[in-house]
Amino acid sequence: MEKVQVQSSTNNYQIIIGNGLMKDISHYLTKEYSSILIITDDKVADLYLQKIKLGLPKDRVFEAIVPAGEQSKSIDIFYRLHTDAIKFGLDRHSLIIALGGGVVGDLAGFVASTFMRGIDFVQVPTTILAHDSSVGGKVAINHELGKNMIGNFFAPVSVIYDVETLSSLSKKEVRSGYAEIMKESMISDDRMFNEIRDTRLDRITNHQLQKHLSYGIEVKAAIVQEDEKESGVRKYLNLGHTLGHALEAEMGYGKLTHGEAVAIGLLFSLHVSNEIYGANLPFQSLFTWLKENDYPIDITNWDYDAVINRMKSDKKTTNKQIQMVLLKEIGKPTVEKINDDALKTYLQSFKGKLVSK
Amino acid sequence: MEKVQVQSSTNNYQIIIGNGLMKDISHYLTKEYSSILIITDDKVADLYLQKIKLGLPKDRVFEAIVPAGEQSKSIDIFYRLHTDAIKFGLDRHSLIIALGGGVVGDLAGFVASTFMRGIDFVQVPTTILAHDSSVGGKVAINHELGKNMIGNFFAPVSVIYDVETLSSLSKKEVRSGYAEIMKESMISDDRMFNEIRDTRLDRITNHQLQKHLSYGIEVKAAIVQEDEKESGVRKYLNLGHTLGHALEAEMGYGKLTHGEAVAIGLLFSLHVSNEIYGANLPFQSLFTWLKENDYPIDITNWDYDAVINRMKSDKKTTNKQIQMVLLKEIGKPTVEKINDDALKTYLQSFKGKLVSK
Repeated sequence: MEKVQVQSSTNNYQIIIGNGLMKDISHYLTKEYSSILIITDDKVADLYLQKIKLGLPKDRVFEAIVPAGEQSKSIDIFYRLHTDAIKFGLDRHSLIIALGGGVVGDLAGFVASTFMRGIDFVQVPTTILAHDSSVGGKVAINHELGKNMIGNFFAPVSVIYDVETLSSLSKKEVRSGYAEIMKESMISDDRMFNEIRDTRLDRITNHQLQKHLSYGIEVKAAIVQEDEKESGVRKYLNLGHTLGHALEAEMGYGKLTHGEAVAIGLLFSLHVSNEIYGANLPFQSLFTWLKENDYPIDITNWDYDAVINRMKSDKKTTNKQIQMVLLKEIGKPTVEKINDDALKTYLQSFKGKLVSK
Repeated sequence: MEKVQVQSSTNNYQIIIGNGLMKDISHYLTKEYSSILIITDDKVADLYLQKIKLGLPKDRVFEAIVPAGEQSKSIDIFYRLHTDAIKFGLDRHSLIIALGGGVVGDLAGFVASTFMRGIDFVQVPTTILAHDSSVGGKVAINHELGKNMIGNFFAPVSVIYDVETLSSLSKKEVRSGYAEIMKESMISDDRMFNEIRDTRLDRITNHQLQKHLSYGIEVKAAIVQEDEKESGVRKYLNLGHTLGHALEAEMGYGKLTHGEAVAIGLLFSLHVSNEIYGANLPFQSLFTWLKENDYPIDITNWDYDAVINRMKSDKKTTNKQIQMVLLKEIGKPTVEKINDDALKTYLQSFKGKLVSK
């Protein structure tokens, strides 16, 4: 079992990573609650809802199940969960448990942050990708016009990461999660980048997974502690995300997973970094790793103008100027403003490189 | 011009109260913004929108107008305002100005607190009642099943109170605002209580109004600074509100103004305090003041069970037990849990007292 301590302006909390934690979840709750609402999705419910309930009190534990997928981060489902919480009689001393991946964490966390102006919530992530959203207290739902546009900074009271639950993940989910771990290595550490790049995701061991997960959480926790509200270094965590978010939105949420979209964004960030800084970043080696691990990188049908417009409505945009995180070298992130014309040129030359290889 | 400094966990801000501040509003903004969205309602827009715009930059100032009234604190309007903000191209360095009463403040504040996870907002209150919601950082919208159920703690960066705008208030609005000032006096100061009780609202002078307003803001600011998250003394601000909120919801928001509903709640709190503590609180004198100033206090058609059920879904309820703020004497508030049967008895004897006098 490993523990990572995260400090936020509102509270300090622990991320506990270990095998079989779920069935003993009550041990890790820090106080008594008047009632508990478990928010999860229909896929995770089938696998783990009964299991987690075995670890909780018999009385006043309720459940709300949403459809699996990004589409559940909608205003309608957000409101419906508030309705459930009121009908179940939750009060200010109740707890919300977010059982699931990043979608459930973001959604349930935003409900918890706004229900009666904020009640406690605990995250129980069931995907690799969710290691990312479980640190940093960002919670949100999507607007039709942009991802995570409606949200809050609201930290959980604890995160209980039961790695046992990760063995049931599909290849697509493993891929999606590893895109963020790859990103964390790219902004922090050359050695770790090489290690991840040498990992074949279809042959990953539990030992590797646990190591990479803790590593990713530590990278993110260190950054978030330094800059909770994203005015400085936290921006670096958006490596690959400006394009990634735009792609997700443009393709329709759910067509391309978050991690798959980010993976394309990571490759694009290396391309732009090499162009702007004349750097020698390992574009080809990342490209090969992505192909070997079956990341979808077919970009032949992109509508560049539409993608650029999506990038402009990204939350990181200031005064309509697109900001991108780039790298001077692995472990040395920077932020650049890039104008629309330049961006279009980079997108075109990026496409050229993908097609020619 | 008077200034009250308010300290919150997230920021310190000033409430500036004075004559004719609106036309110079730019002087009171603490930084440059990439764009400004004024959120107001249709009634206030007619009176003050052009005036405030004269005081703001010519470029990148947008407006969003919602229907006047509590009904605008809905999830639909909340979402529509997010749509507007995105379409106008607001970013993280934009400002939202809440121009209007408490409804606009709560709604626009909640939009600001959740747009891209929070951007600056400034309140420009145009009612007496809004002095209350302008202190304390509580922002929220209503759920069909309960008032202010979906919200946040999010402080404005400043509050600009232009008392000139209060001369256009209707008698009903003056009444509604004075119920909160009355409450502030009841929980803090016998002398002030007597002064308010000796005030005839139809003959109020500007001098009195300004004095009472500053007084109310100071009472509230002192309490909120001591207890931002409502774990202790802040509860006292709910004097009259447990019943008040239930009445508003039961009658349908908008039928009874917030202040009118609270006024009945204040009188009820004196009744219950006298019953429980055997105290000698000025029930009769407050009752007379309410009648003299035309507060609607006809409660003959109440459905007690429905009202009690509403009180139970109030946010202050813990473990389904209704909490009420009571007074041991004027200026000495307390909190008591009251069970449903006792509450029903008090409501019946309250009705008896109102009808017999």
